[in-house]
Amino acid sequence: MSDLVIRNATVVTCDNSGTVIHDGGVAVENGRITQVAPSAELPGDAKQVVDASGHILMPGIVNTHCHAADSLFRGLVENLPLEPWLQTVWKAEGAILNPETSYLGSVLGFAELLLSGVTTVMDMFWYPGETVKAARTLGMRVATGGIFFDPPGVTGDDLAGRIAKAERFFEEFGDAEDVFPTIMPHGTYTVAPDNLKAAKAIAERHGALFSTHAAETKAEQADVTGRYGRSVIRHLDHLGLLDRRTVLAHCVHLDGEEIEILARSGASVAHNPMSNLKLASGVARVPDMLAAGVNITLGTDGAISGNDLDMWMALRLAATLHKGVTGRADVISTGEALSMLTRNGAAALDASDRIGSIESGKFADMILIDIKRPHAVPVFDPVTHIVYSTAKSDVRHVFVGGQQVVRDGVLTRHDVGDTIEAVERLAPKIAASIA
Amino acid sequence: MSDLVIRNATVVTCDNSGTVIHDGGVAVENGRITQVAPSAELPGDAKQVVDASGHILMPGIVNTHCHAADSLFRGLVENLPLEPWLQTVWKAEGAILNPETSYLGSVLGFAELLLSGVTTVMDMFWYPGETVKAARTLGMRVATGGIFFDPPGVTGDDLAGRIAKAERFFEEFGDAEDVFPTIMPHGTYTVAPDNLKAAKAIAERHGALFSTHAAETKAEQADVTGRYGRSVIRHLDHLGLLDRRTVLAHCVHLDGEEIEILARSGASVAHNPMSNLKLASGVARVPDMLAAGVNITLGTDGAISGNDLDMWMALRLAATLHKGVTGRADVISTGEALSMLTRNGAAALDASDRIGSIESGKFADMILIDIKRPHAVPVFDPVTHIVYSTAKSDVRHVFVGGQQVVRDGVLTRHDVGDTIEAVERLAPKIAASIA
Repeated sequence: MSDLVIRNATVVTCDNSGTVIHDGGVAVENGRITQVAPSAELPGDAKQVVDASGHILMPGIVNTHCHAADSLFRGLVENLPLEPWLQTVWKAEGAILNPETSYLGSVLGFAELLLSGVTTVMDMFWYPGETVKAARTLGMRVATGGIFFDPPGVTGDDLAGRIAKAERFFEEFGDAEDVFPTIMPHGTYTVAPDNLKAAKAIAERHGALFSTHAAETKAEQADVTGRYGRSVIRHLDHLGLLDRRTVLAHCVHLDGEEIEILARSGASVAHNPMSNLKLASGVARVPDMLAAGVNITLGTDGAISGNDLDMWMALRLAATLHKGVTGRADVISTGEALSMLTRNGAAALDASDRIGSIESGKFADMILIDIKRPHAVPVFDPVTHIVYSTAKSDVRHVFVGGQQVVRDGVLTRHDVGDTIEAVERLAPKIAASIA
Repeated sequence: MSDLVIRNATVVTCDNSGTVIHDGGVAVENGRITQVAPSAELPGDAKQVVDASGHILMPGIVNTHCHAADSLFRGLVENLPLEPWLQTVWKAEGAILNPETSYLGSVLGFAELLLSGVTTVMDMFWYPGETVKAARTLGMRVATGGIFFDPPGVTGDDLAGRIAKAERFFEEFGDAEDVFPTIMPHGTYTVAPDNLKAAKAIAERHGALFSTHAAETKAEQADVTGRYGRSVIRHLDHLGLLDRRTVLAHCVHLDGEEIEILARSGASVAHNPMSNLKLASGVARVPDMLAAGVNITLGTDGAISGNDLDMWMALRLAATLHKGVTGRADVISTGEALSMLTRNGAAALDASDRIGSIESGKFADMILIDIKRPHAVPVFDPVTHIVYSTAKSDVRHVFVGGQQVVRDGVLTRHDVGDTIEAVERLAPKIAASIA
């Protein structure tokens, strides 16, 4: 008997052909999808049967750039451009963060993400073991691992300490199905070339992912070019850091040759439109990157920059911002935008065989979206509806590996009220940290 | 005894001084606010007492540009720039719209708006009497009235017919507290100069508002300049149509002198960032208009262009888009963005004495926002929270004239499920209309 059958849904599979089944569903066994079919062809019985009438069934969302624990600092630092903003953020982080508060902040951020349908997140933060623990508390997947940052930072580590911790992460989590180990140097302006190469060497030794911030601001491009005689992407390329297991966050300021380098390398770009707008970083050349063949994914960045972790906002912006800025209504199609939300994220994590679409053999990471709402009807095309009319509150049920982790808009494994209370108890200390 | 007391809220009044009361509320009698005060100073008893702990109390939102009934066509026409898009839209409207379907579509759109906290909307549509009827079904205020459009359009009227209908609207609704009568010519490229002047004459005779589309696209600016030898704003100014009772939707493409004309005239600009982005119209020069002293308000436009009617999205875009596009993080403050959502809209409707802020003597149009949510906490500053972290689903309770029209996220006066079913019954005919 199947563990789970979901039926009577509009299934937007996000497979290679963009298959949509208008009255269909899935069967699930041992955490994997075993069948994707019209409702009439699905098993009549299962341990759990979900009637998904009036809902779209689609793959779980993949958020490829986040600092979830920074949700503790939401709205603390406003109206500053990136560089002075970062200095203030780092001051607050230095005063507040330890393993316990990092765990608390990660649960807060991941709760927001999971409730909105994000089932896998790439998250860069100081205590990656706590990050995994937080994701497991809620039941979601996470791409994370050792971070590299030349100054001592919150953890006070030197390079040897960072390498040791990064290695230890693989011992603990290297074989886990819910963890995508990733080496995460902060950026080319905060990590020296040799240290970037040391970080990449660890990633290669373990077949892991490698992710860093890149070309977020004009100031960063000028800084890196001044120091190394090469712009950020050329510098990364020169150091041999760009390949199919590389995820670069932002890439707002690129010239045409840098876009070609990215396309040739196979590296993915995590587009974070809300963060880039709010911090006045600029508007990434997404249509040009798409045209060149770069794999574009979406991210929220941390809530300290964009103030929430809303992938639906990222999606809507990805689908509309570039039309408005270029003056061309055809620069991004609904299908391309939907791919950025789902299957492109899976490809960036080198996990297209496991996540990013609803297909037989993949992890049963899926969400149900209520479409019987006044802002939703009529639905002429479900993909158009997903891209242009869906809000995070429309996500009613979320499954990860076939386990229901959100039911009727409520986490099944954790009382989020406890987290909210703990965050509110900590808030006065956070406010005082930058006073 | 007061009709209503709301206590224990964080009150964001949106008054002239930006007053915030951290543990406060309001008392209401006969539809008007009689007291705004700390909780301890409010009457202990009332016909209805609301404990608003964990909520922000703020004024109802004012949406200054909408075509609510166009929600019937949500997602029907995609990936086209404004002009060919309009031709297809008008084809669908011509096949589908009559008084009954306009009422249905208006209820659909207004339900979405009211549930998200919009208590007053300026709405331009073919059957303004049906628009008022729909607003009254739900219990919200509406600025609407006779439309002018040189071609026969959906209603088949000639100029005399349009004038007669516009006049009749004042007979029916001229004295109503819930209606702000407005004369609504479509635009300078669809209404001839003499007809625009005839429309304005009616507005002036009745002391009514006047609203039209203006400078939405480059093509429109070129068209109008070619026909009349003046750009859109200069043309409107030359015809004597700009004053403090004028609301211009969009104003995306303006030169510096046009911005000065707008500022001098006292006309308001309804900024519709989502529609402008999605239709590839461009990005309005909002920071320059603010610097010149233009009253900037927010609108959603119709759901056929932006695909939903989300004023929280409009707010977020207004607060972030211009930072990203200009590269300056200080071009719009949180206070300015909040004013666009509330008090500036009231000023545009020449109704600052009645709506747009929580102050004694004004209509008790108010909303309660739940801030005990994982995407909301911590809240260091309630205005920052409203502008950057609030989503439409956080609006739990809505009051218009002291009457509760939304309770726990549900309309109190209308079963929205009936509307959704009726829209779904009509959907196949709508799809066929452009086939």
